[in-house]
Amino acid sequence: MPELRKDIITGNWVIVATERAKRPENFSSKKEESGVQARPSYKPDCPFCPGHEKETPPEVFSYRTPGTPPDTEGWRVRVVPNKFPALSLEGDLQECRHGLCVAMPAVGVHQVIIETPRHDASPAELAPGEFAEVLKTYRERYRTLAEADPRLEYVLVFRNHGRPAGASLEHPHSQVSAMPFIPPVVEKELAGAHSYRTGTGRCVYCDIIKEEVENGERVVAVENGFVVLEPYASRVPFETWVLPEVHSSRFASQGDMELEQLALVMVRLLDALSRSLGDPAYNYVVHTAPCRGNSADDYYHWHIEILPKLSIQAGFEIGTGMYINVARPEDTARFLRDALKSG
Amino acid sequence: MPELRKDIITGNWVIVATERAKRPENFSSKKEESGVQARPSYKPDCPFCPGHEKETPPEVFSYRTPGTPPDTEGWRVRVVPNKFPALSLEGDLQECRHGLCVAMPAVGVHQVIIETPRHDASPAELAPGEFAEVLKTYRERYRTLAEADPRLEYVLVFRNHGRPAGASLEHPHSQVSAMPFIPPVVEKELAGAHSYRTGTGRCVYCDIIKEEVENGERVVAVENGFVVLEPYASRVPFETWVLPEVHSSRFASQGDMELEQLALVMVRLLDALSRSLGDPAYNYVVHTAPCRGNSADDYYHWHIEILPKLSIQAGFEIGTGMYINVARPEDTARFLRDALKSG
Repeated sequence: MPELRKDIITGNWVIVATERAKRPENFSSKKEESGVQARPSYKPDCPFCPGHEKETPPEVFSYRTPGTPPDTEGWRVRVVPNKFPALSLEGDLQECRHGLCVAMPAVGVHQVIIETPRHDASPAELAPGEFAEVLKTYRERYRTLAEADPRLEYVLVFRNHGRPAGASLEHPHSQVSAMPFIPPVVEKELAGAHSYRTGTGRCVYCDIIKEEVENGERVVAVENGFVVLEPYASRVPFETWVLPEVHSSRFASQGDMELEQLALVMVRLLDALSRSLGDPAYNYVVHTAPCRGNSADDYYHWHIEILPKLSIQAGFEIGTGMYINVARPEDTARFLRDALKSG
Repeated sequence: MPELRKDIITGNWVIVATERAKRPENFSSKKEESGVQARPSYKPDCPFCPGHEKETPPEVFSYRTPGTPPDTEGWRVRVVPNKFPALSLEGDLQECRHGLCVAMPAVGVHQVIIETPRHDASPAELAPGEFAEVLKTYRERYRTLAEADPRLEYVLVFRNHGRPAGASLEHPHSQVSAMPFIPPVVEKELAGAHSYRTGTGRCVYCDIIKEEVENGERVVAVENGFVVLEPYASRVPFETWVLPEVHSSRFASQGDMELEQLALVMVRLLDALSRSLGDPAYNYVVHTAPCRGNSADDYYHWHIEILPKLSIQAGFEIGTGMYINVARPEDTARFLRDALKSG
């Protein structure tokens, strides 16, 4: 069972997930090629390819051809529990302390969203209608997991694209984690947005959108009800945020129409990134309000943060907790605007 | 001039260092090989190799053969300013605000410590006497930079080994940064250690050492006055800390003897890591008390944290700010104890 361990000095928690543990000797550096490799559209040994439905844990949700039974072919999007979950619903939310060692079961849910039957279709290559079904699956997961267990406080949807970004299986998939706490990154955003709201009466994200759109130099696109921009304090080259123009705290409250519009924006953007930068690896994360309560609805603004993996977090970042970004977001925004135009 | 930019939501600062900026189009994914490659002992196009002293900014410190002038051959360890510094002493510590955009010059120092004239000598391959001179250079930098500018609050020494760990030049080198603030990672450690001291009257690191040595399962070695252990809440596989057994808050206050002993420990440990895991990339960071004042002397305990780059921080880590570690530190400690024995 995965375990949360507390750093007694900093108070930081770490998940030790032995279910996916390699034996120590298996960490020996394989000189793997980085980057995203050429892929076939079907791979006989891929557990996410059609016809291999029995190689994953049973599906918990799918979009599939009417009449086809679960865990058979005929699906377009399929959600299955992670075979090596970092979080699991077993165990009690109870700290256990031996001297300076404080642990707790890593209570939660960890699932995989298989985005397409096609092994070789990256997000940039999905049809907007296909991407919209992936986004609707995200929404369905937010809604279902918020109800699944009263202990769950936050649902996180994220995507690793390419091996350097941590995608260990190449078949296109997103991941969803639900956890009994608000993760530190979101906690910090909520605190900052709440403090801004208290000081000004306004949503800080709405104000950023207004100011950035007026200024223009960090804006990549304003289209279909979404703003795409490179944030002023971008942590990595080509960090890109996609925000709804109209204030909304929750991804889960978006209608079909909004998600279809978002799919158009995301496919165009990821395609521009891919064409102009040689299919870089990236992570994207959906930032949305916590499951419980609605206190954040006034001041939090859901959005997607895309972080291409074009630089390495090294000793300076590890030692300080700060990023050094070697590219100006004004320059990368201009570059992406041009890439979108030539698409 | 490098610039600090503030994330108006989280309050996090990012350094935008345009001096080392690539043009956006140059980020296009090169499918580079990862891992540490075979290297010659001298490389004609390496600015850190002997005979190329004029290709770096003038040296600010060196250990060299008596009688040899600065910026010529004859050095054993050489410190030069970083050619593309992320921090620079120009500019005033003054926030500049335009709407929601808050910036400040990235005031500080960024230097390179060239550890050996031999292009192909990794830290694990240095003689203990050579490594001791590198450590003495760290100490000299701590002392000199603390005096260099009254605005500097913290000096950070770190090492990136191997390209996946961010070493862009392969010639063995450490880096030193001095900055006018205490970085967030250190701030958090200091706060935790201070709170522990307030509650117990003791140093949390001393207590960890005591408890870990009694328990034994996460201890890799206790030798030459140092304890080598895998911390209970290890963030990454094979995270390893090296701490002086006797309480001391500052690396800079270590005597020659202690640094010579530490060199023996570090060379043995890095050699064991390298032999048993196929020369993995890693970062190590020296954690020490801030330059100014001595309030932390009671409760802070300097140490070195080594983080091998055997796993990837992906969407979960980026979205939550938490780590998933797929190896138990109890297992990696046992593995490293065995590797040390077979050395």
